[in-house]
Amino acid sequence: MGYHVAVKVRFSDVDNAGIVYYPRFFHYFHVAFEELFSEKFGIPYVDVLNVEKIGFPAVRVENDFKSPLRFGDIADVEISVERIGTKSIVFRYQLRRGAGGPLCADGKVTVATVNMVTFQAIPLPEKYRALFGQV
Amino acid sequence: MGYHVAVKVRFSDVDNAGIVYYPRFFHYFHVAFEELFSEKFGIPYVDVLNVEKIGFPAVRVENDFKSPLRFGDIADVEISVERIGTKSIVFRYQLRRGAGGPLCADGKVTVATVNMVTFQAIPLPEKYRALFGQV
Amino acid sequence: MGYHVAVKVRFSDVDNAGIVYYPRFFHYFHVAFEELFSEKFGIPYVDVLNVEKIGFPAVRVENDFKSPLRFGDIADVEISVERIGTKSIVFRYQLRRGAGGPLCADGKVTVATVNMVTFQAIPLPEKYRALFGQV
Amino acid sequence: MGYHVAVKVRFSDVDNAGIVYYPRFFHYFHVAFEELFSEKFGIPYVDVLNVEKIGFPAVRVENDFKSPLRFGDIADVEISVERIGTKSIVFRYQLRRGAGGPLCADGKVTVATVNMVTFQAIPLPEKYRALFGQV
Repeated sequence: MGYHVAVKVRFSDVDNAGIVYYPRFFHYFHVAFEELFSEKFGIPYVDVLNVEKIGFPAVRVENDFKSPLRFGDIADVEISVERIGTKSIVFRYQLRRGAGGPLCADGKVTVATVNMVTFQAIPLPEKYRALFGQV
Repeated sequence: MGYHVAVKVRFSDVDNAGIVYYPRFFHYFHVAFEELFSEKFGIPYVDVLNVEKIGFPAVRVENDFKSPLRFGDIADVEISVERIGTKSIVFRYQLRRGAGGPLCADGKVTVATVNMVTFQAIPLPEKYRALFGQV
Repeated sequence: MGYHVAVKVRFSDVDNAGIVYYPRFFHYFHVAFEELFSEKFGIPYVDVLNVEKIGFPAVRVENDFKSPLRFGDIADVEISVERIGTKSIVFRYQLRRGAGGPLCADGKVTVATVNMVTFQAIPLPEKYRALFGQV
Repeated sequence: MGYHVAVKVRFSDVDNAGIVYYPRFFHYFHVAFEELFSEKFGIPYVDVLNVEKIGFPAVRVENDFKSPLRFGDIADVEISVERIGTKSIVFRYQLRRGAGGPLCADGKVTVATVNMVTFQAIPLPEKYRALFGQV
């Protein structure tokens, strides 16, 4: 249930309050999204974009920040699929401080499916409907 | 109604799809938040954190992405206060491509008020209740 | 003598040591470079890249870090042209903590001139030779 | 000879020219530096900073950019020690596009040794002189 990606918090990821800058959490989510393609699906996301000419831009985000992350922590990002629509997919991200650790962020990112040449919305290709259905 | 901050989209703000990387929008929101303190309130945010020992970490974010931003665009970020609670404040951010331009992002960021030494929630100081009430 | 750009140090620009992350200084240099085009030359750098199809990628960088920058500081970045070659230009960057303040970074960035379609080196166009000669 | 760290180029690491933003290379160098401590030395860099109160800020950088990196590439960063002085160390970084691939960046970063409480230079502790001597 869900695909897990470990992301190390880097020296530069913190802000002047000494904790991970909150926009950075969405970067960690995106890193997990990239890994989902390259490592679980075996399709580098760069090829999805540049060869298949398909992109998944975020159209809506919501997230609750539950607990801070600090330099030296390893974020365990679990990505799961909450809903697969005709032209959009809702991914859920649960980020913990270490595998099995306290929940730091719990969010949803809705992405559209677009043609990367025209940037117009397109129906989700069957191939990805099937792949996302496994997550 | 609301406080406006112009933020230039930089050469490095885009992603491999050629548009502003979505987590970067939250950085633009934060830049506007910093400017609200230093330029409108006349209190550099660094002093709020380091001298007054008060911080406003994000506890919840939601945002709709309406239209992309690109390098060369100037984001007009309007920050307004949607709700002032006892220990939290909801800010609304509306980001347009240029002043009066198309709406690119429409979001809300809920922040808590914390003591920066203990990281414990504290009641919003009256001074900030009054200042936020003007935005 | 040189073109000055003020760049505010942001909440997120620091690292876990509480000072500006050193790679960020090169970002400040690039911001000054972008401003040189858009504000002094009146040619948005995005148009240089996307319309004129000319780019100036860095081929060599050297920099001495003299003093740290912190959140709340305003960097005064002075960009000047040290040498204009046939296919490369050497820019010098001197970054101070506030105008007239202590020198924090003193660097040189050598850029090539390339055609953005082919990424091949091209001779520096006369137009830019003249413009850079004024800085 | 040298310690190798693989760093994946991320979707957001590129600039508007579609190649990795040059300041980002120094971030990759720093990631390798962090890994040197945590993975090779078995001492998380966060503990060096926060527990041992020792830091290694960059005081000088020089780098030649030889070839661009793009999204989807995996940078092979080789970190080696070029010189160990009394109060400074010169690290060399050679970054290739994939292990054994073309050299993309060849740089040197000189760091000082400082006490993280006072930010004053201190002699390099023997422990680190020995550890750096193995790299």
